[in-house]
Amino acid sequence: MAHKRNKRYKEMIGKSPGALIYNGDETIMETVVTLISYNSDETTTNTCNRLDQLLPLLKPDRINWIDIDKLQNVLLIEEIGNEYKLDPLVLEDILNIDQLPKFDDMQQYVFVSLKMLSLENEGIRHEQVSFILGGEYLLSFQEQPGDVFNAVRKRIENLNGRHRRKGADYLLYSLIDVVVDHYFLVVEYLSNRLAEIELKVSGKPDKKLVQEITALKREFIFLRKILLPFREAMRKLASSESELVKEENEKYFNDVLDHVSQVIQDLEAQRELLAGVMDLYNSSLNYRMNNVMKTLTVITTVFIPLTFIVGVYGMNFKYMPELEYHWGYPIVLCGMLFTGIAMYIWMRRQDWL
Amino acid sequence: MAHKRNKRYKEMIGKSPGALIYNGDETIMETVVTLISYNSDETTTNTCNRLDQLLPLLKPDRINWIDIDKLQNVLLIEEIGNEYKLDPLVLEDILNIDQLPKFDDMQQYVFVSLKMLSLENEGIRHEQVSFILGGEYLLSFQEQPGDVFNAVRKRIENLNGRHRRKGADYLLYSLIDVVVDHYFLVVEYLSNRLAEIELKVSGKPDKKLVQEITALKREFIFLRKILLPFREAMRKLASSESELVKEENEKYFNDVLDHVSQVIQDLEAQRELLAGVMDLYNSSLNYRMNNVMKTLTVITTVFIPLTFIVGVYGMNFKYMPELEYHWGYPIVLCGMLFTGIAMYIWMRRQDWL
Amino acid sequence: MAHKRNKRYKEMIGKSPGALIYNGDETIMETVVTLISYNSDETTTNTCNRLDQLLPLLKPDRINWIDIDKLQNVLLIEEIGNEYKLDPLVLEDILNIDQLPKFDDMQQYVFVSLKMLSLENEGIRHEQVSFILGGEYLLSFQEQPGDVFNAVRKRIENLNGRHRRKGADYLLYSLIDVVVDHYFLVVEYLSNRLAEIELKVSGKPDKKLVQEITALKREFIFLRKILLPFREAMRKLASSESELVKEENEKYFNDVLDHVSQVIQDLEAQRELLAGVMDLYNSSLNYRMNNVMKTLTVITTVFIPLTFIVGVYGMNFKYMPELEYHWGYPIVLCGMLFTGIAMYIWMRRQDWL
Amino acid sequence: MAHKRNKRYKEMIGKSPGALIYNGDETIMETVVTLISYNSDETTTNTCNRLDQLLPLLKPDRINWIDIDKLQNVLLIEEIGNEYKLDPLVLEDILNIDQLPKFDDMQQYVFVSLKMLSLENEGIRHEQVSFILGGEYLLSFQEQPGDVFNAVRKRIENLNGRHRRKGADYLLYSLIDVVVDHYFLVVEYLSNRLAEIELKVSGKPDKKLVQEITALKREFIFLRKILLPFREAMRKLASSESELVKEENEKYFNDVLDHVSQVIQDLEAQRELLAGVMDLYNSSLNYRMNNVMKTLTVITTVFIPLTFIVGVYGMNFKYMPELEYHWGYPIVLCGMLFTGIAMYIWMRRQDWL
Amino acid sequence: MAHKRNKRYKEMIGKSPGALIYNGDETIMETVVTLISYNSDETTTNTCNRLDQLLPLLKPDRINWIDIDKLQNVLLIEEIGNEYKLDPLVLEDILNIDQLPKFDDMQQYVFVSLKMLSLENEGIRHEQVSFILGGEYLLSFQEQPGDVFNAVRKRIENLNGRHRRKGADYLLYSLIDVVVDHYFLVVEYLSNRLAEIELKVSGKPDKKLVQEITALKREFIFLRKILLPFREAMRKLASSESELVKEENEKYFNDVLDHVSQVIQDLEAQRELLAGVMDLYNSSLNYRMNNVMKTLTVITTVFIPLTFIVGVYGMNFKYMPELEYHWGYPIVLCGMLFTGIAMYIWMRRQDWL
Repeated sequence: MAHKRNKRYKEMIGKSPGALIYNGDETIMETVVTLISYNSDETTTNTCNRLDQLLPLLKPDRINWIDIDKLQNVLLIEEIGNEYKLDPLVLEDILNIDQLPKFDDMQQYVFVSLKMLSLENEGIRHEQVSFILGGEYLLSFQEQPGDVFNAVRKRIENLNGRHRRKGADYLLYSLIDVVVDHYFLVVEYLSNRLAEIELKVSGKPDKKLVQEITALKREFIFLRKILLPFREAMRKLASSESELVKEENEKYFNDVLDHVSQVIQDLEAQRELLAGVMDLYNSSLNYRMNNVMKTLTVITTVFIPLTFIVGVYGMNFKYMPELEYHWGYPIVLCGMLFTGIAMYIWMRRQDWL
Repeated sequence: MAHKRNKRYKEMIGKSPGALIYNGDETIMETVVTLISYNSDETTTNTCNRLDQLLPLLKPDRINWIDIDKLQNVLLIEEIGNEYKLDPLVLEDILNIDQLPKFDDMQQYVFVSLKMLSLENEGIRHEQVSFILGGEYLLSFQEQPGDVFNAVRKRIENLNGRHRRKGADYLLYSLIDVVVDHYFLVVEYLSNRLAEIELKVSGKPDKKLVQEITALKREFIFLRKILLPFREAMRKLASSESELVKEENEKYFNDVLDHVSQVIQDLEAQRELLAGVMDLYNSSLNYRMNNVMKTLTVITTVFIPLTFIVGVYGMNFKYMPELEYHWGYPIVLCGMLFTGIAMYIWMRRQDWL
Repeated sequence: MAHKRNKRYKEMIGKSPGALIYNGDETIMETVVTLISYNSDETTTNTCNRLDQLLPLLKPDRINWIDIDKLQNVLLIEEIGNEYKLDPLVLEDILNIDQLPKFDDMQQYVFVSLKMLSLENEGIRHEQVSFILGGEYLLSFQEQPGDVFNAVRKRIENLNGRHRRKGADYLLYSLIDVVVDHYFLVVEYLSNRLAEIELKVSGKPDKKLVQEITALKREFIFLRKILLPFREAMRKLASSESELVKEENEKYFNDVLDHVSQVIQDLEAQRELLAGVMDLYNSSLNYRMNNVMKTLTVITTVFIPLTFIVGVYGMNFKYMPELEYHWGYPIVLCGMLFTGIAMYIWMRRQDWL
Repeated sequence: MAHKRNKRYKEMIGKSPGALIYNGDETIMETVVTLISYNSDETTTNTCNRLDQLLPLLKPDRINWIDIDKLQNVLLIEEIGNEYKLDPLVLEDILNIDQLPKFDDMQQYVFVSLKMLSLENEGIRHEQVSFILGGEYLLSFQEQPGDVFNAVRKRIENLNGRHRRKGADYLLYSLIDVVVDHYFLVVEYLSNRLAEIELKVSGKPDKKLVQEITALKREFIFLRKILLPFREAMRKLASSESELVKEENEKYFNDVLDHVSQVIQDLEAQRELLAGVMDLYNSSLNYRMNNVMKTLTVITTVFIPLTFIVGVYGMNFKYMPELEYHWGYPIVLCGMLFTGIAMYIWMRRQDWL
Repeated sequence: MAHKRNKRYKEMIGKSPGALIYNGDETIMETVVTLISYNSDETTTNTCNRLDQLLPLLKPDRINWIDIDKLQNVLLIEEIGNEYKLDPLVLEDILNIDQLPKFDDMQQYVFVSLKMLSLENEGIRHEQVSFILGGEYLLSFQEQPGDVFNAVRKRIENLNGRHRRKGADYLLYSLIDVVVDHYFLVVEYLSNRLAEIELKVSGKPDKKLVQEITALKREFIFLRKILLPFREAMRKLASSESELVKEENEKYFNDVLDHVSQVIQDLEAQRELLAGVMDLYNSSLNYRMNNVMKTLTVITTVFIPLTFIVGVYGMNFKYMPELEYHWGYPIVLCGMLFTGIAMYIWMRRQDWL
C-alpha cells in the first residue's frame, strides 16, 4: 500500500498545479453522478455518468444536489470543474484523498473538504468527501461508493420537511451534521474498545494487549489529525462572510462547530485514559514480576541454607563425631526445621509474605 | 450502558435539528414543574405537570422561576419551548445530557447549560442543568430529581433578603454560584481521596491501589472536561452585552468566573500530584523488588560456594587424602566459616547490606 | 484539618454573597488594628482593636496605613468595610484564605490579594495578605500575627527616606516588593533542598528520598499555583489606568512584575531539575539492581555446573570406574578449576565483569 | 565534522556583518551559474562561471532564472550580490548553510531561504536553497550540485505550458512547490521505516532497534526544526504585500502553505507513533523478562525442595532408621513426585503457567 | 556558595529600591573603566578607575564607549549613574547579577541586560553584561574581567571599517552580535558533549553517564532560562520606537533576533535529543539486565534438574536396586546428557538463545 502510494506521490512531483491526478484506489467501479433536485413542490432523482447526460436534467428554479460517487474518472471531474468554473487548485484538493479537512471561500462558490467516518464490521471506515456550495447548487464528491447521507435523502423526499423550504446552504449543513453525528458514534466505539482493554489489563497482562493499545492509539492519532483541521474549517465556515451562507442559517453551522468541539473534547479525554492504560499495563506487569520474584526469593532463602547443612553431613570425612551420635540425625532434622521456621518468621517481619 | 446510549446516538443520526430526542435515563418519574414567583412583597410556590396548569399561575409583575425537573416528557418540554419561543437547537441542547457547558446569547433570552455536581454516599453525582434567562423569568431544566438549590429557595422566601429586590439575572447568578460552591466540595473530596492513596502507597504498594489511582484519574479527566468549557461559558456570560444581564450585576458573574478559575487551578494542582503518586507507586514497587533481589543475591552468594565445598568432600573417590586426616572435618568447617564471613564483608563493602 | 475546612465550605454554600464567613484558623488571638500615619514631617503609630477607637486617630493630611492583623473578628472587618464602602464581594475575598492572588480596580479603591511567604524553622510559612489602596489610605488585612513588613516600617520612621515624600501607592509598592523579595528566599531555600536531595540520590538511593522528592514537588506545585495568578495580578496592577496609582510610580510596579516573572522562571527551572532527580533516582535504583543481578548470575553460572559435577561423583553406584582411579580426585579437582576459569573468561568477554 | 564546523563558527565571530564566509563543504567542485531565460515565445539555457560571462546573456524582456550551483566561490557570490544590490546580511544568510528557513521582504526584492530534501540511496539528503525574487529575475543559490528542479525545467521548455505566460513569482512558486512535494516523499519514507521498526519490535526486541529508533527520532527532530520556520516563512510570503508577488498568484502560495501545514501534521502524527514504539519496545522487553523470570521461578520452586530431600537421605549418620527400611527408597521417590505435582498445581492456581 | 548568596538576598530585603547592593563575587580586582572614543578620523583608548579621571577624556563629537569592568565598586557605579541620570531601578538591575536578560526604553537612554557566554577550559563561563545606549555614548557594565569583545575593538581601530561611520547603536549591535555568535559556539559545544555521551551509552551504560546527562541537562535548563527572555528583549529592541536606534540600523537588530531564535531552535532540538539519551540509557540497562537474566535462567534450568538426579543416586538407602546394576552409572549419565540437550532445544524453541 505504502509503496503504491509512494509511486503516486512521485507521479505528482513536478506536474503543474493544473495537472489533475487521482491518488486514491483505482480498482473500484465507475464514477456515478446522482442528481437530486427539489423545491417546495417537487423532488426528482436521476443518475447518470456523463456530463452531457447531466446538464439537461438541471433545473434552474430548484436546489440541485449533484453527488459524484467514486473519483477515478478524472476527465469527468475536470469537465464538471470547467462547467462550474472551479479553480484547478480546488480540483487538485478534491482528487487528493490525503487532503486534510479544509474550508475555502472562492467568492463564486465555497469549498469544504472533510472525512466521512462510519463503523463497518468492527472497524472504522473513512472516506473523503468534498463539497462545492454555489448559489442554487451543491456538488459533493465522494471517494468511494456508500455514504451516511441516506437519512438526509429521506428528509428531502418528505414533502413537509424543512429541507424543501430552505436553500442549498441548509443542505450542506444537513450533510455535514450527519457526518459529525457519526464522529460521535466512532468516538463511542473507540471508548468501548478502550474500556474492554482496561478490563483485560486489570486481569492478566498479555502481550496482545500492547498491540491492541497501539492500534487504538493509532486510531486516536488519526482522528485527532483530521479533527483539529476540521474544527478550524468549521470555524471559518461558521464565521464566513460569504453570501452563499445565509445569515439566518449561520446558527446551524455554529451548532456543528459546537459538536465538533465536543467530539474533540471527548477524544482528548479518551486519549488521556489510553495513556493511563499503558501505565496500568506496565505497572501490572511489574507487580506480577514482583510477586514472582518474592516467591523465588522465599523458597531460595529457606532451602539453600538447609541444603548446605545436609551437604555437610553428607561429607565422607573419617572423623566426623556427630555422625556417630545416636541422636545426631533427629537433632539435625529438628535444627533444620527450626532454621526454616525462623527464616519464615523473619521474612514475614520483612513484610514479604 | 454504553450500548444503550450508542443506540440513542444512532436514533439521533439523520434527524432534522428540530426533532427532539431525550438521551438520558428514562426510568425516572414524571416531569414536575415548580413555579416560584416573587417580588419584594410576596413569594408563592406552585407545582404542576402540564403547561395549561402552569400558564395561569404566572404573574407578570413578579420574577417567575419555572423549575422543570426530569426531562423525559419531551412533549411538555416542546410546549414550553414554543410558549417561550425557544430555538429548536436550544431545546436539542437541553435534552442532550452529554452537552458540554455552554453559554449562548439568543437576543430574546440567554441560554446557559452546565453540570451540577454533588457528593452522595462516597461518590460524585452529576446532573445536567440548563437555564433560560428572559426578562422577568428564569427557566431551569434539571435532568434528575434532587438538586443543590434549597439554600437559594430559602433565601427567596426570606422577606428581607437581597433576592427580593433583585431581578431574574441575580437569581441565575445565585443558582450558578451554589453550583460552583459544590465544585469546591467535590475537588476537596477528591483531594482527600488522593491524600489517602498517597499514604497507602508510601506503606505497602498493592495492586488495588493502581485501580484506585485509575478511578481517581478518570474523575479528574471528567471534571476537567466539563470545567474548561464551563469557564469559557462563564467568561462569555460575564462579558456578555445582553441587556438581560444588568450592568450592576456583572460583578457577581465576574465573581463566579473567578471561583471557577480557582477550582480549575486547584484541580490542575491535584492532577499533578496524582501523576506523582503513580510515580511513587512504581518507584516503591521497584525499591521493594530491589531489596528482595539483594536478599536473594546475598544468600545465594554466601551459600552456593559453601554447598560446592561440602559437595567436594561428599564425593566417593577412593583416594581422597583429606578425608583421612583427623583434623580434616574441623578444618573444612572453619574454612567455610571463614569464606562465609569474607563474602559477607565483601558484600558490605559493595554497600549491599 | 481537611474535614474541618470541608465543614466550612459546607457553611458557605447557599449563603448570599454578602454573608461574611472567615474560613481560616480561629484559635489565634484577637484582631489588632495598627495605624501608621505619616507625612514628610511626622510619623505616628497607634494600636487599637475597635473601629470607634481607630476613627479619631486618622489624619486627613497624612498617609494612613491601617494594618489589620488576624481576621477572625468578622464584625470589625465588616464595620471597616462599611466605613470605607468596600463591596461585600471584596470583603468575602479578604476573609477567604483560599483566595488566589488577585487584582481588582473598584474605581473608588484598588484591591490586591496575595500570599506572603517566609522561612521559619526549616519550613515555609504562608499567610494571606489583602490590600485596599484608596487615595490617602492603605488598608492591609493579614491572616496571622507576624509579617515581613518591619523593614518598611523602619524606612517610614526614617525622616529623610523617600517614603515620606511619596503617596500611599508607593507604600503599597514597598509592601508588595518586600513580599516578592521573600519569594526569592523561598525559591532559593527550595533549590538548596533540591541540591541536597540530588547529592543523596547520586550516593545511595533510599526510600525516604522519594518522600522528600514528593514533598518538594508539593511545594513547587503550591508555589506555582499562587505565582501564576500573582503575575497576572501584578500585570493588571502595573498597566492599570486607575488614578490611584500615579503614573510616575508605575515603573515601580513594573519592576515588581519583572521580579515576579524572574521568580517564576527560577521556579520552572527548579521544577525541571526536580523531574530529573526522580529519573535519577529510578535510574540509580535500576543500575544497582543490574549490578546485584550480575553478581548473582556470575556466581550461579560458575558454581552450579561445578556442584553438579561433585554431585555426580557423590553417587553411590557400585560400578563407577573413575572412583577407583588413583588420580581421579586430583583430575576432577583440576577439571573443575579449569571449568571455573573458562566460565570466568567467557563472562569477561560478555562484558559482564 | 563537528570540530571542523566549530572552527568555522570561530572564524565567523567578530567579523563585521558584511564579511562573507561560506561555512559549507568546500571540497565540491566549482560554482556553476545556469541562466534560463524565457518568455512566451522562446527559451534559452546558458551556463557560465563568471559574472562578466553572465551579464551579456541577460535579456530584459524575458524572465531570467539565474541558478547558482555550489557556493564556495564567495567572490562570485559577492559580485552577484553587488550587481543585484543585495544587502550584506542577505548574502550572509545565503552562505550560512545552517540558516533556518526564512522569508524577508527587502522592498527591491524578496528573499526566501529553505531546505531542499530528497531521497538518495536509502537516506535523506538535505541541501540549502535560497531564492531572490526581483521584478523580472529569480536568483537561486544551491549548496550542492544536483537538485529536484528538473521537472520545472522541462515545463519551462514546454512551449504551451502555463509557465511561459506567467512571471518570475510563478516560477518561484513552482520551485518551492516541487521542494514541498519532496517533503511528502520524505515523510512517507520515514513513516515506512517506522512501520518496519514497529513490526520488528512486536517480534523480538533487539538492541539495534533502539539505535534505529533513535536515528529515526533524530530525523524527525531535524525535520521539525526546519519545517516550523518554513511554515512561518510561507505564511509571511503568502500574506506578503510585496508588489513582486502578484495578487493573482497569491492563491498558489496559499496552496503551498497548505501543503506545508499538512506535512507538519503528518510529521506530528508520526512523532507520536514513534514515541509509542519506544514504549512498545520497553514493554516488550519487560514482558519477555517476565516470562523468563517465571520459568526460572517455576523450576527453582519445584526442584530446590526436592534437592533438599535427597540431600537429607545422602547424609552419613550412623543411625538413620529410614535408610534401613526396605520400601524407604520407593516411598521417598513417590513422596517427591507427589511434592512436585502439588507445587505444580499450586503454581497453576497462582496463574503463573 | 548558595548560603553566601542567601545572605545577600537577606541584605537586599527591605532596602528601598534606590539602595544599591552588588550581589556578585567581591574577591576580584578593582573596577576598571576603559574609554574608547572614535569618529571616522580618529580612535583613542584610555583607562582609568575614577569618574573625575574619566570625564575630561570624553569628547562630544565622537562615539564614546565607556566599558566598566568588574562591578564591586558600587560608589563608582553610583557616580556614573548620577552623571548619566540613570534611574535607581536600572542601577539595581545592573548590579544584580541574577537579573534575567531585559530591555527597557527609558526615553533618555536604552537599557539592555544580557548574559555573555564563552568556552573556557572545557566549561562554560557566564558573565552578566549591561548596556546603556545614549545618543553619542554607550556604557557597558561587565561582571568580571575578560570578555568576548576584542574582535569589535579591533574593527573599531580599523580606519576604513564600517564602525567608524556608524553611530553608537551600531556599536551596541556589534557587541550583542558577538555575544550571540558565542551562543552558537556554546550550543555546539553542548551538542558535541551530547554526541559523546550518546556514543558511550550505546556501548556500556555506566553510572557516571547518568551524572554527565544530568549535568548537561542542567546546562540546557540554564541556557533556556536566559535565552527565552533574551529573545523577548531582542524582539522589543528590534521593534523599539526609540530614536536612539536609527531606523536604518533596525535590520541589524532584526538579524540578531533571527540568530537568537535560531540558537533557541537548536537548543530545543538538542534538549529533545537529550531526553532520548536518558531513554536510551534506561533501555540499554534493561536490555543488558534481560540478557543477564536469560543466562542465569538457562544455566539454572539445565543444571538444577540434573543436580537433583545426581542427588537421588547419592542417597544412602540400603535397598536401591539401580545402584547395583552394572550399567547403572553410564545409563544415568546418558539420561542426564539427554535431559540437558532436550532442555536446551526447548529453550531454543522459546527463542531464548
